Amino acid sequence: MKMNANYENLQDSYLFARIGQKVREYKAKNPNADVISLGIGDVTLPLAPAVIEAMQRAVAEMAHEKTFRGYGDYQGEIFLREAVQNYYAGKNVQLELDEIFISDGAKSDCGNLLDIFECPCTALIPAPVYPVYVDTNIMAGNRIVYANGSEENHFLPMPDYAVDTNLIYLCSPNNPTGAVYSHAQLEAWVNYALEKDAVILFDGAYEIFVQDELPTSIFQIPRARECAIEICSFSKTAGFTGTRCGYTVIPSALQRGGVSLNKMWLRRQTTKFNGVSYITQRGAEAALSPTGLTQIKENIRYYQQNARLILDAMRARNIPCIGGQNAPYVWLKCPQVASSAETRHTSWAFFDHLLESANIVGTPGEGFGLDGYFRLSAFAKRENVLRAMERFPTA
Amino acid sequence: MKMNANYENLQDSYLFARIGQKVREYKAKNPNADVISLGIGDVTLPLAPAVIEAMQRAVAEMAHEKTFRGYGDYQGEIFLREAVQNYYAGKNVQLELDEIFISDGAKSDCGNLLDIFECPCTALIPAPVYPVYVDTNIMAGNRIVYANGSEENHFLPMPDYAVDTNLIYLCSPNNPTGAVYSHAQLEAWVNYALEKDAVILFDGAYEIFVQDELPTSIFQIPRARECAIEICSFSKTAGFTGTRCGYTVIPSALQRGGVSLNKMWLRRQTTKFNGVSYITQRGAEAALSPTGLTQIKENIRYYQQNARLILDAMRARNIPCIGGQNAPYVWLKCPQVASSAETRHTSWAFFDHLLESANIVGTPGEGFGLDGYFRLSAFAKRENVLRAMERFPTA
Repeated sequence: MKMNANYENLQDSYLFARIGQKVREYKAKNPNADVISLGIGDVTLPLAPAVIEAMQRAVAEMAHEKTFRGYGDYQGEIFLREAVQNYYAGKNVQLELDEIFISDGAKSDCGNLLDIFECPCTALIPAPVYPVYVDTNIMAGNRIVYANGSEENHFLPMPDYAVDTNLIYLCSPNNPTGAVYSHAQLEAWVNYALEKDAVILFDGAYEIFVQDELPTSIFQIPRARECAIEICSFSKTAGFTGTRCGYTVIPSALQRGGVSLNKMWLRRQTTKFNGVSYITQRGAEAALSPTGLTQIKENIRYYQQNARLILDAMRARNIPCIGGQNAPYVWLKCPQVASSAETRHTSWAFFDHLLESANIVGTPGEGFGLDGYFRLSAFAKRENVLRAMERFPTA
Repeated sequence: MKMNANYENLQDSYLFARIGQKVREYKAKNPNADVISLGIGDVTLPLAPAVIEAMQRAVAEMAHEKTFRGYGDYQGEIFLREAVQNYYAGKNVQLELDEIFISDGAKSDCGNLLDIFECPCTALIPAPVYPVYVDTNIMAGNRIVYANGSEENHFLPMPDYAVDTNLIYLCSPNNPTGAVYSHAQLEAWVNYALEKDAVILFDGAYEIFVQDELPTSIFQIPRARECAIEICSFSKTAGFTGTRCGYTVIPSALQRGGVSLNKMWLRRQTTKFNGVSYITQRGAEAALSPTGLTQIKENIRYYQQNARLILDAMRARNIPCIGGQNAPYVWLKCPQVASSAETRHTSWAFFDHLLESANIVGTPGEGFGLDGYFRLSAFAKRENVLRAMERFPTA
């Protein structure tokens, strides 16, 4: 019995597992340290009242034979798919119910979607970006080519027709940079995908944070239905990091080699997945209700204000940075090492420096595929953000 | 972009999705039909009071900042892994906490575990058995060899040393036959796995139904830690078909080619999964508490009594059958076609006959890999089981 040798090409552990371990070790050695996390993108505000109420009601239903729920609809309950359909209608995107697949989160879908493609294949992945795309493609033995973000292109890499690919990952608003593609830029990507017969995996986990006039779904772009899958999450939108719910949209128009990707994903999910908790689905439905949306948007504004504070603090220290306006992340250039005005910290060196000297946890850019930069997240409680910004080292 | 061609080797749809569709169509054409389902193994009794209480408390915690839970422990919360550890101790199996991985269900783990093995490989799968094993191996492009259950071997196939394999699937108590391996038989399988350097994937989803003195975990067998992974579920045990929770046990002693399977699964799950809902985990913890276990065992007894009624009804009709004693399934030989004493129904023909003539839904053996037989499940409400048995056609 041989094990999947592709795993040898991975780092020892998933980025945030490694960071979690380093922080635990630091805290064990320094039990009195007041460590503030602006690291993993974990929300801190509680679930919205409408969500709580819906879940309490759902739990109560599970207590009685007449209202008890067993196995649910493989694609997710109709009530939730209707809520998602409605949410998209509000963004001027019309979806059919059978184009929506409820899941336990975007992270699961991201990795599992690779099942339906012929692997090994080639995946075009931005750098820097959410490490799950690279890691899952390494696990599948896929070849990875990078679309490099840089200060020059404002961390919004564009298609290079000299590069062939089968899959294209786009995350907009981007994790970790907070950069957001314009309508024209996404059209360029759609055209490239159509030309290359590639499929775009569009991660919209942060769409609710967009404040400027920018796309909030790939399906707002003409012809995207012929070449894109959209993956979304309730994690940041509704604070469901510990509750677990997301959805993937696969248009019926999306075909490759005469095969419907929608039908393949249905087959994959009906065979390798058994649906999301009824209780969670009622909570997600409530999050997208008019009352729920009003409540979760208050939380989003709270995080957006945190991001603003972080941005302002970086600028006050002359630390070059982007993001924070349409995303809950600020992406900064690693400051100079104190003793030398020439050399900047590597991102892991800056991670250690920040943790030890200021007791702040961030995420090194190297973990997202681009050293020399660093991500701060805006999900902490306001007082912690304020205290962290006071303590943040000057450049 | 090419799609995974292995999917062309699958049936159009997952067995229970296909059956669900046929039943929906029948009900649409026959809206007054009083259809009773003894088909998909879906529980009908509500969640235990201890579980409900724990989940209500957990939902309430999610409403307040101080007690809100975001991302959880990648392997599952310690409180739940301790409860599982304790449950195993009660079966004389000592586990370490890091050998336990909480998931959203055995079905997910069954399919996803294939990620860590080098595919294509060879999988030895019983016939008949839970269709997920065959389907997921087809999707992975694996070669499948069968361990054939028959009346002769009491549907307990034993190792054939002429057959080489990398993976061995065992489901005991078996779905769909209800047959349970003895200690000696499982030892024989462990010896075979060690000889062949194979890994056993042991599905213990029905262990709680065992009434006779029979093994309830592969780890009750000496040396199983060196060659087996155990996959379990709260679905039938605690009625969590709509709540979603399970766990996989991978002993630290399980290594192949110097690689720890436990570490590989951890890497897989930290990268492609994001944990189980906090609310669900508190419910699962409560299910395994002393009070919870008492309550869920009442439900198990209820289903066991249903199984008894079904067994008795089959015997009263001289329909050869097994199971029902240590599992919530009865496995019967398809009766003769009425007009001819010689020919027996095929299992799909019997499915149609049963649905149309008696308005009862069962599951055809062909869907589990063995035609000529049929499965009835014991999860329906008592009055429905009684009514169905009255209506059940005589042989």
